[in-house]
Amino acid sequence: MDRIRVGVNGYGVIGKRVADAVHAQPDMHLVGVADIVTDWRIRSAVPRLPVFAATPDAHTGLVDAGIRPAGTLDDLLAQSDVIVDTTPKHVAARNLPRYQAAGVKAIVQGGEAHDTTGHSFVAQANYATALGRDLTRVVSCNTTSIVRVLGALDDAGLLLRARGVLIRRATDPWESHLGGIMNTMVPEPVIPSHQGPDAKTVLPGLDVVTIAAKGAHTQTHNHYWTLQLTREASRDEVLDALRAAPRIAFIRMSDGLVALNSTVELMRDLGRPRGDMWEVAVWEDLVTVDGDEAYLTYQVCNEAIVVPETVDAIRALTGTVTDPAASIRLTDTTLGMRQDFLTPERS
Amino acid sequence: MDRIRVGVNGYGVIGKRVADAVHAQPDMHLVGVADIVTDWRIRSAVPRLPVFAATPDAHTGLVDAGIRPAGTLDDLLAQSDVIVDTTPKHVAARNLPRYQAAGVKAIVQGGEAHDTTGHSFVAQANYATALGRDLTRVVSCNTTSIVRVLGALDDAGLLLRARGVLIRRATDPWESHLGGIMNTMVPEPVIPSHQGPDAKTVLPGLDVVTIAAKGAHTQTHNHYWTLQLTREASRDEVLDALRAAPRIAFIRMSDGLVALNSTVELMRDLGRPRGDMWEVAVWEDLVTVDGDEAYLTYQVCNEAIVVPETVDAIRALTGTVTDPAASIRLTDTTLGMRQDFLTPERS
Repeated sequence: MDRIRVGVNGYGVIGKRVADAVHAQPDMHLVGVADIVTDWRIRSAVPRLPVFAATPDAHTGLVDAGIRPAGTLDDLLAQSDVIVDTTPKHVAARNLPRYQAAGVKAIVQGGEAHDTTGHSFVAQANYATALGRDLTRVVSCNTTSIVRVLGALDDAGLLLRARGVLIRRATDPWESHLGGIMNTMVPEPVIPSHQGPDAKTVLPGLDVVTIAAKGAHTQTHNHYWTLQLTREASRDEVLDALRAAPRIAFIRMSDGLVALNSTVELMRDLGRPRGDMWEVAVWEDLVTVDGDEAYLTYQVCNEAIVVPETVDAIRALTGTVTDPAASIRLTDTTLGMRQDFLTPERS
Repeated sequence: MDRIRVGVNGYGVIGKRVADAVHAQPDMHLVGVADIVTDWRIRSAVPRLPVFAATPDAHTGLVDAGIRPAGTLDDLLAQSDVIVDTTPKHVAARNLPRYQAAGVKAIVQGGEAHDTTGHSFVAQANYATALGRDLTRVVSCNTTSIVRVLGALDDAGLLLRARGVLIRRATDPWESHLGGIMNTMVPEPVIPSHQGPDAKTVLPGLDVVTIAAKGAHTQTHNHYWTLQLTREASRDEVLDALRAAPRIAFIRMSDGLVALNSTVELMRDLGRPRGDMWEVAVWEDLVTVDGDEAYLTYQVCNEAIVVPETVDAIRALTGTVTDPAASIRLTDTTLGMRQDFLTPERS
């Protein structure tokens, strides 16, 4: 079977990770990446990937820097079956007509509204409903984590109601010099924050409310959940439900993973590309169950968590793999995802 | 009536604030403060307050620095009706026999266990039960805030169950150089964290669970609460219940108070001593009520919130003011506490 030809428009925090992940998939061919910038961000890609110029200015800029672009965005589209748009929020929505005119299927990111594509995607929840579609939206990092974790408990028939507090990272590491948040906490100005309602675009039945704030740190989000269960349950039942779902890994305070920075450092030590953590990291020893209530604490690498979902979305749109579990397994194996970072994997 | 003679043992974050607040009360006489240190922390007090040496070493150190101590800790005790112990956690418990031998009533802080004194104090909740006692414990900053806010809703018959996430400050500003927390979040290793259970030492009927973490900031704690009400209620009912309680002030995002640092700066602009905020600052425009659920976000100045409680505890132990509301009013008026920082006070 021919490999799926994939283009990536926008070589930022998400785009560069998606490009690498696509490049690693045995059933995909990365045609190249496009961007409007011409500085270190895109030039670091030149020796490794075909780089296209998303605008005439970018074309000129690359040529002036002594780089020969592989072509224009139109050239990239002409060679692609699927384009992954990882441009900044609201830019992707404006790009969609261009993709559709070129007859290329498109995936946008969580910064766009659900209505932009009419379909929102998290692989383990609704891969099947994306099969053969022209468009989908991979939901944002926090929303992805909510669907994975709450979806796992919902699948086990355990979840009645979820109320969460999300402490978000202030800004991404690469743009911290632009001014992040120092020595304070910044509550989001509206309750509920958008992540809870956004999760319902994938799992409409969830009873979920989120409160969010930004913290004075730059790496990863931190979630605190109070769950009303459908019945009294044991701690093991809750742990088993989480273990049964893909893309959730357990971490433990007893292993010395006592804060966000410990896990960030572990990812570097494990040799992960860019130190990425594609899994939701749930603190196993903080999972607390009291009667029909449960409390969860977990960590979300906002830069990386949507990458495997995007890879699966590519397969779903093209319909080359119809079994969700088969796509998830292929993606996870290729990337080297884990259910536990420190103990040997169960086979 | 003779003024109550008050000594303060421990001139740290809490002690220095208690000393100033006691000094300001018309019915109290500050005998002086004692400490074991002899550096800037205590020497800045020398021109303003009688300074006693808590140990022979401290006595020598002060004399070496050219300062004549007002006496020893025993001298301070001999002149005091009440001693407020604001020494570090667990030191106060060891000091109690000495206070009792001297026949001096004593107040310890929230770092000590409830059993140390057999009574835990928040003025608006249980002033009356402290009348005439020899000992009480003013509960910690977070616990005080929980009792004030949840107690207000409980008094209004509105509160069934409260689940809160507390993002604590990493370390106090004065000791930030000792190593705080940078660029991470540090979840507390046990759920529930101690603050919820601790609130029950004052209000045994509360159904409250807390999850806590430390953030990468140094000033004030930040609470996020999900409340199950006893019935469907309007937002105004919840606001009215909070307004009916003392020591809760409303702040608003619409006034530009959008984060912890905004409120910290406002306290400085209001001319508060040390920039202190004795009130719990509840974001009025974040108070969200949906059927029988309510969501609250508030800010706690951990350095200052227990100061008015400590002042009231002094009156309660001595029994000089038997009406809780009268003591609270006197304390609050003397300190200049507010229900709203930006609009004129209701009379």
